[in-house]
Amino acid sequence: MTDKKPHILVTNDDGINAPGLLALVKEIRKIGDVSVLAPDHNWSASGHVKTMHRPLRVKLTRLADGSEAYCSDGAPSDCVALALLGFIENPLDLVISGINPNANVGHDVTYSGTVTAAMEAAISSLPAIAISLDSPEHSTGSFDFKAAARAGRNAASLVLRNGLLPGRLLNINVPGLLEEEIKGWRVTRQGLRIYRDELVRREDPRGKPYYWIGGEAPTGVEEEDTDFGAIKQGYISVTPIQLDLTDYPAMKQIETWKWPK
Amino acid sequence: MTDKKPHILVTNDDGINAPGLLALVKEIRKIGDVSVLAPDHNWSASGHVKTMHRPLRVKLTRLADGSEAYCSDGAPSDCVALALLGFIENPLDLVISGINPNANVGHDVTYSGTVTAAMEAAISSLPAIAISLDSPEHSTGSFDFKAAARAGRNAASLVLRNGLLPGRLLNINVPGLLEEEIKGWRVTRQGLRIYRDELVRREDPRGKPYYWIGGEAPTGVEEEDTDFGAIKQGYISVTPIQLDLTDYPAMKQIETWKWPK
Repeated sequence: MTDKKPHILVTNDDGINAPGLLALVKEIRKIGDVSVLAPDHNWSASGHVKTMHRPLRVKLTRLADGSEAYCSDGAPSDCVALALLGFIENPLDLVISGINPNANVGHDVTYSGTVTAAMEAAISSLPAIAISLDSPEHSTGSFDFKAAARAGRNAASLVLRNGLLPGRLLNINVPGLLEEEIKGWRVTRQGLRIYRDELVRREDPRGKPYYWIGGEAPTGVEEEDTDFGAIKQGYISVTPIQLDLTDYPAMKQIETWKWPK
Repeated sequence: MTDKKPHILVTNDDGINAPGLLALVKEIRKIGDVSVLAPDHNWSASGHVKTMHRPLRVKLTRLADGSEAYCSDGAPSDCVALALLGFIENPLDLVISGINPNANVGHDVTYSGTVTAAMEAAISSLPAIAISLDSPEHSTGSFDFKAAARAGRNAASLVLRNGLLPGRLLNINVPGLLEEEIKGWRVTRQGLRIYRDELVRREDPRGKPYYWIGGEAPTGVEEEDTDFGAIKQGYISVTPIQLDLTDYPAMKQIETWKWPK
């Protein structure tokens, strides 16, 4: 890192007005020049999107503290693509996405708009961080983002100092505790989510059925070395993520199958 | 496998009326009982979606050959979730998604609706296959799906016979060649896509800017043992995919970073 201040893009999947975004922007400003380009509405569980069938709008707006920011009608990953393809003119050193008000652990990473925004940066070989807060259940969404925002700044400093290999990102989850209750950091592997989705069938006023994907919030398998295990034990979880999904151990075995000529 | 016919869900990301879906359904019917639940419109590059903010509709319709099929206004992964959560009553043995009329190789797998539909099944520990055809450039989309559909059937038979570990799927890409020109099968790793996206700025009739994610179609790094390399050399590519994205080699190194107390 030279003396030049790093240029950091902050985005999220909850939309430009989400309190988690502002909390993160305020902390990240302490270590670099910040550009904000985030969706104009909530895109939770939106996955990794590349919008090519319609044009995207970008609007100059202001965050609640009066600072300038851009919002787009594209998905979180679209916002990152727009920024990297040149909408943000000065070269970027890091992309950080969050703070999501719910944990993104286990298989959540493929659904999560927060994480897939960071994936979009990683695909362009730019270091990236996704950061989420495991808000306490029944909290009204106003749970304090202070500890998570500070964790985001610390992680951003370390990534800027140490670098990440191309195609890599950090997925960070912060437990829903007061800052003084957090026990420290743990580097973890992606754990196993237990989804408890249920199909809820209803009928509209004209007697036609419709379906909600409902059920209780997901839980997870609590293993010490995983993302889910770490936050449940009071640690900030740092999971290094890579985008090669090949199941290498399976390759040899599948080669022995009787593939037709 | 018992004597009971396997029950196979066929879905896609191009929509219920796509010719690739019908071609696949016709072949898969030769080896099992087929249920179809696919999106009612095209969801290409839609990513891994779980729609929880709105209810989903499901409609009984007919494919071009007159057979019954369901379509939903949800994403491809929503269609699989609906089916597995009980909309399709009889238990399923396999989910196969396709035939996508463009290859899904390299980093495409995280964007691809075809692949993320299969991911949704894999998360529920059901064996799954995504199948895509590398249609020749400048083909009008009417390129023959025959070879790809037959490849899908062969792969489905082998998966039903040999099984897949939970959380695993096969990502299959078929070269855009006549069946007799295809050289055979190769088990491959996920390769590297080279995206050539460009930001295209236009102005609407009222002088306000809008942006297309444009540019040329992606190419890739042609390595023999990769998905992209195999199809470019005339082979059907079979890539085993798993959903643990942890960068295990990076964990130790990141633990040595100076994480704050």
